[in-house]
Amino acid sequence: MTAKSLDVVGIGNAIVDVLVQADERFLGDHSLTKGTMALVDEAQAERLYASVGAGLETSGGSAANTLAGIAQLGGRAGFIGRVRDDQLGAIFSHDIRAVGTRFETPAATSGPSTARCLILVTPDAQRTMCTYLGASVALEPADLDLEMVAQAQVLYLEGYLWDSDAAKRAFIAAAEVARAHGGEVALSLSDAFCVERHRESFQELVDGHVDILFANEMEITSLYKANSFEEAVEQVSGRCRVAALTRSELGSLVLADGQSHRIEPIQLGPLVDTTGAGDLYAAGFLYGWTRGETAARCGQLGSLCAGQVVTQLGPRPQANLTELVQRHLS
Amino acid sequence: MTAKSLDVVGIGNAIVDVLVQADERFLGDHSLTKGTMALVDEAQAERLYASVGAGLETSGGSAANTLAGIAQLGGRAGFIGRVRDDQLGAIFSHDIRAVGTRFETPAATSGPSTARCLILVTPDAQRTMCTYLGASVALEPADLDLEMVAQAQVLYLEGYLWDSDAAKRAFIAAAEVARAHGGEVALSLSDAFCVERHRESFQELVDGHVDILFANEMEITSLYKANSFEEAVEQVSGRCRVAALTRSELGSLVLADGQSHRIEPIQLGPLVDTTGAGDLYAAGFLYGWTRGETAARCGQLGSLCAGQVVTQLGPRPQANLTELVQRHLS
Repeated sequence: MTAKSLDVVGIGNAIVDVLVQADERFLGDHSLTKGTMALVDEAQAERLYASVGAGLETSGGSAANTLAGIAQLGGRAGFIGRVRDDQLGAIFSHDIRAVGTRFETPAATSGPSTARCLILVTPDAQRTMCTYLGASVALEPADLDLEMVAQAQVLYLEGYLWDSDAAKRAFIAAAEVARAHGGEVALSLSDAFCVERHRESFQELVDGHVDILFANEMEITSLYKANSFEEAVEQVSGRCRVAALTRSELGSLVLADGQSHRIEPIQLGPLVDTTGAGDLYAAGFLYGWTRGETAARCGQLGSLCAGQVVTQLGPRPQANLTELVQRHLS
Repeated sequence: MTAKSLDVVGIGNAIVDVLVQADERFLGDHSLTKGTMALVDEAQAERLYASVGAGLETSGGSAANTLAGIAQLGGRAGFIGRVRDDQLGAIFSHDIRAVGTRFETPAATSGPSTARCLILVTPDAQRTMCTYLGASVALEPADLDLEMVAQAQVLYLEGYLWDSDAAKRAFIAAAEVARAHGGEVALSLSDAFCVERHRESFQELVDGHVDILFANEMEITSLYKANSFEEAVEQVSGRCRVAALTRSELGSLVLADGQSHRIEPIQLGPLVDTTGAGDLYAAGFLYGWTRGETAARCGQLGSLCAGQVVTQLGPRPQANLTELVQRHLS
């Protein structure tokens, strides 16, 4: 295996987030389950948008947030995903490149507009998401920059891609190329409902293709229909090289090469908005991993990045992550 | 004069802000003067955007921020301004309506895209703005909803409109309609460079058309080429019914009906971003004014609203202004 020119390459939905404040009642009135992601079509997206207050727009997308975070930490990052050639697409493209992530997927010149995610932030800082996938689902195997995938130490895939058949095929094709070139494959399970929709498929994927798995407590227990976190931990043990399981204020558990590490949570200020917490945990973890850090240290880096992003509105860190690592973990 | 159905109607540029962090060196490298607004064309806007970091998008526009603030306080507000029928135009239109401001100017279906303002926030929380006026300058006298103007207790105009000849004509036509229907005319001088560009014209306007003038220290001293704030105060005295002159951390001075009131500044937390401070001062002031409050109380309402908006990123209050008024000024 030759030296790699990129640390992590991610494939995911290219999304612009619209953050709005909402109360519990609004979630109930619109049959939304707090803390989860629901898919909506364009008409539903417009209807929901019309019923919420003023928003704040910021680039998002789960894997995209992770890759932006890795670049902000100083890692060599690449992202593959599809926007439309519209104003929101220009914002997404600018923001991911502005932090130093390679992003070269050509924008679609026809078809649906750039994907949007309406994120309802409740007073308890939890976020509930309604995603219109738009141009994102136009990602196909033919769009993959396989040369970039081959250059990655780790290929990172978000489970949300499973909601599009074409993207799913692109996802598996990319995993095979990464493996063939000596790279590792990492997967985030993304969302408990997403796991619900694709349980068997995800189980096969974890067994057959995944080296590093990221999941929160709800997602991992849903994946194995387990009755408790402990039972889910038992189920996932030995199925992939690393499983990094996040548990909000309980920190995380990292299972790696037969060992288990309890990682303390880190929180750098008052809780404002949990959007991006899982994405930034993965960013910190993979940044450490591609630098050859121990699994425990990778978990701490994940905790720190997640602990920063929950103190601000939106999923892309406004703080200098490199400085934070030096201050808190050196 | 019959009873009015609206408290304040504003005419201004309909702009989406792109907030980015920048350091002093960036301002120097691009010949930008801290704390001011520079006009840029589309090519310059693209070039600048390409050279800055990741941004946060939020509806802006000086008068639009003021009218959104008045609606958030519970006032009956209307706004007239021109967007294009594009994604940023949809964001602007949604946000101003979402807080309850009447906004019915039809979006342009051809021509330049919705106006954008790149706002560089330096570590000292000051903001420096580069505005691409885009569709905003397409506002013409024919677009004015004169029925809405006639219904306003106060017509509020931003000085920035003076940079477009058509908008300037629309501005004067509206002022005449407002006056003819027994309404008062308020003007914000907007920016020291804007005053520099249109000094004589603004002086005539203040003498001939304006009942309530908003200006900060730099703007009012520039308007009269005064050597000190005190000299500028002397110059403006008696020229309009009210002059509300803001001085950042020194609070404000309100000259009204021959009396002078010193208003203490209010700051509700650490200074984060001064974007919108003047706009929200005007919002608080005019909300009080149209409810028949004393000039001193109007100044306090202005101070409170400005004191909130500087503690957050962006010019549209994320806090509940009505609650703040009850807590701090009742």
